[in-house]
Amino acid sequence: MNKKGLLFIISGPAGSGKGTIVSRVRELAQFDFSVSATTRAPRPNEENGVHYYFIDKAEFEHKIETGEMLEYAQYVGNYYGTPKKPVEDALAEGRNIILDIEVKGALQVKEKMPDAVMIYILPPDYETLLARIRGRGTETEEVIQNRMNEARTEIQTFPKYDYVVINDKVEEAAADVLSILHTERMRTSRNTDIKEKFFK
Amino acid sequence: MNKKGLLFIISGPAGSGKGTIVSRVRELAQFDFSVSATTRAPRPNEENGVHYYFIDKAEFEHKIETGEMLEYAQYVGNYYGTPKKPVEDALAEGRNIILDIEVKGALQVKEKMPDAVMIYILPPDYETLLARIRGRGTETEEVIQNRMNEARTEIQTFPKYDYVVINDKVEEAAADVLSILHTERMRTSRNTDIKEKFFK
Repeated sequence: MNKKGLLFIISGPAGSGKGTIVSRVRELAQFDFSVSATTRAPRPNEENGVHYYFIDKAEFEHKIETGEMLEYAQYVGNYYGTPKKPVEDALAEGRNIILDIEVKGALQVKEKMPDAVMIYILPPDYETLLARIRGRGTETEEVIQNRMNEARTEIQTFPKYDYVVINDKVEEAAADVLSILHTERMRTSRNTDIKEKFFK
Repeated sequence: MNKKGLLFIISGPAGSGKGTIVSRVRELAQFDFSVSATTRAPRPNEENGVHYYFIDKAEFEHKIETGEMLEYAQYVGNYYGTPKKPVEDALAEGRNIILDIEVKGALQVKEKMPDAVMIYILPPDYETLLARIRGRGTETEEVIQNRMNEARTEIQTFPKYDYVVINDKVEEAAADVLSILHTERMRTSRNTDIKEKFFK
């Protein structure tokens, strides 16, 4: 089979449980982490190159201009983004990568790397989504309603993804993601080396 | 999840072992059979609607003209083909179908039903293909060489399929096909009903 790794992009609204699924998938299969870059200051326990690549604003903006960022966004005055080179290097060496990113970033990545496999995680229904967002128990009703509105808006974008995984039970949803990985490896477009085996 | 069934098209050269895989897949998962139509005369043990739909040449050609044949071909003066309506009915009722057909027919089906999932079965390498074709033991060297040439020509078409399954061990290859089935059900394009669950 072809030795190139696969890039998985996983998104989902608050309450989808995608963080838990990604952790479980990483326990079950070999996936590389992608370390994000940011212009915010490191916190005491954070190490450069492990938690983030800490770079300054000028360098970050230079990387945006030269296309070295797969995706990026700004939050409260700081840049956050995914450097392209470590991802490309890992894929070229046959290692798989999961990026757990929000919708806007995901669509930026897909544009630059059309081979990426886009997975959208959803809770089984509206009531479960509401219960999960409410279940954190720390938010005011207004915050909960805002989260729900955001989630409902975000869910509209799911048709732009390749696959939708319903997270009813974490173990099953993680198995679904692994099934997608296994199946995507069988795509003819990822196995162009096969002809050589029959026409050497 | 969406209730529409999936149409699987399975092809592969002589020696690929696709017949064995299709049988095993049918033991492991619910798939409908598709009964072919033919203009050849029924053999003593053959029942109309079970082994084939036996129809005359005028009716077959009428079905071709009116687009009622998903695919068809001629062998030694007789037509053979897959009637469209039973396939469409089964899919509409949520049942999955596997069509085990050769490349030309497969491409005809894909054109008429772009949602079909195309799987090409291959032996692991050239030596195994040769050994399997030779292994039948009943053929002359000339026949074997012809079969190999046909297989090599046919293998060129595999990039037109969605997936390639390497048949090293039947049990693993059957599991691969089931993984494709499971994964294809998660395609966002097959789950357009999901929005209703969140925006009722």
